Amino acid sequence: MLKPLGDRVVIELVETEEKTASGIVLPDSAKEKPQEGKVVAVGTGRVLDSGERVAVEVAVGDRIIFSKYSGTEVKFEGNEYLVLRESDILAVIG
Amino acid sequence: MLKPLGDRVVIELVETEEKTASGIVLPDSAKEKPQEGKVVAVGTGRVLDSGERVAVEVAVGDRIIFSKYSGTEVKFEGNEYLVLRESDILAVIG
Amino acid sequence: MLKPLGDRVVIELVETEEKTASGIVLPDSAKEKPQEGKVVAVGTGRVLDSGERVAVEVAVGDRIIFSKYSGTEVKFEGNEYLVLRESDILAVIG
Amino acid sequence: MLKPLGDRVVIELVETEEKTASGIVLPDSAKEKPQEGKVVAVGTGRVLDSGERVAVEVAVGDRIIFSKYSGTEVKFEGNEYLVLRESDILAVIG
Amino acid sequence: MLKPLGDRVVIELVETEEKTASGIVLPDSAKEKPQEGKVVAVGTGRVLDSGERVAVEVAVGDRIIFSKYSGTEVKFEGNEYLVLRESDILAVIG
Amino acid sequence: MLKPLGDRVVIELVETEEKTASGIVLPDSAKEKPQEGKVVAVGTGRVLDSGERVAVEVAVGDRIIFSKYSGTEVKFEGNEYLVLRESDILAVIG
Amino acid sequence: MLKPLGDRVVIELVETEEKTASGIVLPDSAKEKPQEGKVVAVGTGRVLDSGERVAVEVAVGDRIIFSKYSGTEVKFEGNEYLVLRESDILAVIG
Repeated sequence: MLKPLGDRVVIELVETEEKTASGIVLPDSAKEKPQEGKVVAVGTGRVLDSGERVAVEVAVGDRIIFSKYSGTEVKFEGNEYLVLRESDILAVIG
Repeated sequence: MLKPLGDRVVIELVETEEKTASGIVLPDSAKEKPQEGKVVAVGTGRVLDSGERVAVEVAVGDRIIFSKYSGTEVKFEGNEYLVLRESDILAVIG
Repeated sequence: MLKPLGDRVVIELVETEEKTASGIVLPDSAKEKPQEGKVVAVGTGRVLDSGERVAVEVAVGDRIIFSKYSGTEVKFEGNEYLVLRESDILAVIG
Repeated sequence: MLKPLGDRVVIELVETEEKTASGIVLPDSAKEKPQEGKVVAVGTGRVLDSGERVAVEVAVGDRIIFSKYSGTEVKFEGNEYLVLRESDILAVIG
Repeated sequence: MLKPLGDRVVIELVETEEKTASGIVLPDSAKEKPQEGKVVAVGTGRVLDSGERVAVEVAVGDRIIFSKYSGTEVKFEGNEYLVLRESDILAVIG
Repeated sequence: MLKPLGDRVVIELVETEEKTASGIVLPDSAKEKPQEGKVVAVGTGRVLDSGERVAVEVAVGDRIIFSKYSGTEVKFEGNEYLVLRESDILAVIG
Repeated sequence: MLKPLGDRVVIELVETEEKTASGIVLPDSAKEKPQEGKVVAVGTGRVLDSGERVAVEVAVGDRIIFSKYSGTEVKFEGNEYLVLRESDILAVIG
């Protein structure tokens, strides 16, 4: 298991099979990078100058929209994850 | 539904049909990018170093003027939205 | 009406007709950009890290001098305004 | 009268007639830009994150040395002023 | 022994022998730089503006994932270490 | 007299006559810029976000080492001074 | 004696004679810049926004590893020193 630090969040990408109007499945390079993910682990939150730790606003299992190209790709036990900072998350799908 | 994080706000663009003096409807590329939007969701607000969370100054339904080219475009359930930071919002039309 | 957010201020430009020594009225492009404006709306002020909100130092009706090229031009109900941050205002004419 | 905002200060430039060794008065372009001014108005001071407002360290009438090329030139009622931030002031001549 | 300062952490790189599908062991230059390490020493943590010191979130012995190319390589008593800032650590493997 | 503002310090440069091995006195342009000075005036210190003013760590008469090329040269009553920020001072010679 | 200001530290470089495998002593330009030093003086520490002064984490006599190319070289009474900020120090050898 990956336990992210601070205000970091580990997500799995949520990809949807894309077909063109004519029904042809597009290969990966022809698709836009995904902007959607599912949270698999959250950090303990960032620490303010006052010493208070602010809990991350998302929870494990949440589906989120994040800024394209943000985060760091990590391979772990054969799976691919993305480690984001909470500030890279735009919205939760709820 | 999209629930934006922190001081983020989700808006729908408010576009007005534009006609030239001669009555010709202009196609999209000939128009300036819109600067007006309607708030559809607001985040919980940003957290100060003191630990206090500051509520976003706009509310769902507000019509706003925002800085051109700011924010991130998001497609969700067939609709297009823009996720802005509160600081990208110049004024509320009230 | 436009209600600016945070430490923003909405102003109308104050332009004075400019004549050359020979009495010719100069067209707009030959004049320097105005540096003077009249405040038409003020925001609620910026929030400090302590949580305190600091009222904007100018009031509606004040005539101000502001930094050239600062602010964002906004058209609203046929009028042109400039949305400034309070920090773009150099001085009040009083 | 000009009332500067925050930690701003309005000054008049103090220029001294410059002669070369041979007694020729130098035209303006041949002189270095002045670094000396007289304070004509001071702002209310900047606001700290604690909410405290810090009074400007200079007073009306003070003669000051300031960083060359800093500040914004403002014409008001036929006179030329320079609006500086307090941090552009190096020292008071006392 | 190396005792890192502040929010710094000393790690040893964890490298795994890499074989291609055909069983050929890849020389070092053909492999991606490692992203995995084992913590061998932790600093006392960073000091907040409030004066509070925040303990580092990782402990000696932890296996971590860190941002590629971050940190400073240090040779000490014949061994190679990497000195990271805590903020370069993405996640703990736990 | 020059009274520096905030965390500023006024110094006189301390120059030592430099001779080459053959006893030739080097003209000014052939020497490195001095890094040593004597404090002639100190400001009231910088103000922290807490509102506290922190006294400058050097006193009038102190000989100091400062970062080359830092500070602003000021001529006053025929003398040349350098106005430094306290943070440009590396060490006191004591 | 040099008394560094704030969070600064004065160190002497610790250089080790380097021989190639064949026993040839390398001249200085062929060696990497040293990364090791001995602390000879420490400042009073940096002041936080809360007004608290944080003591430097190293003490006179400590041997340290520091970031290459950081700090300012200073000659004093015929010796060469390096003035570092505490944040340039990676670790203490203990």
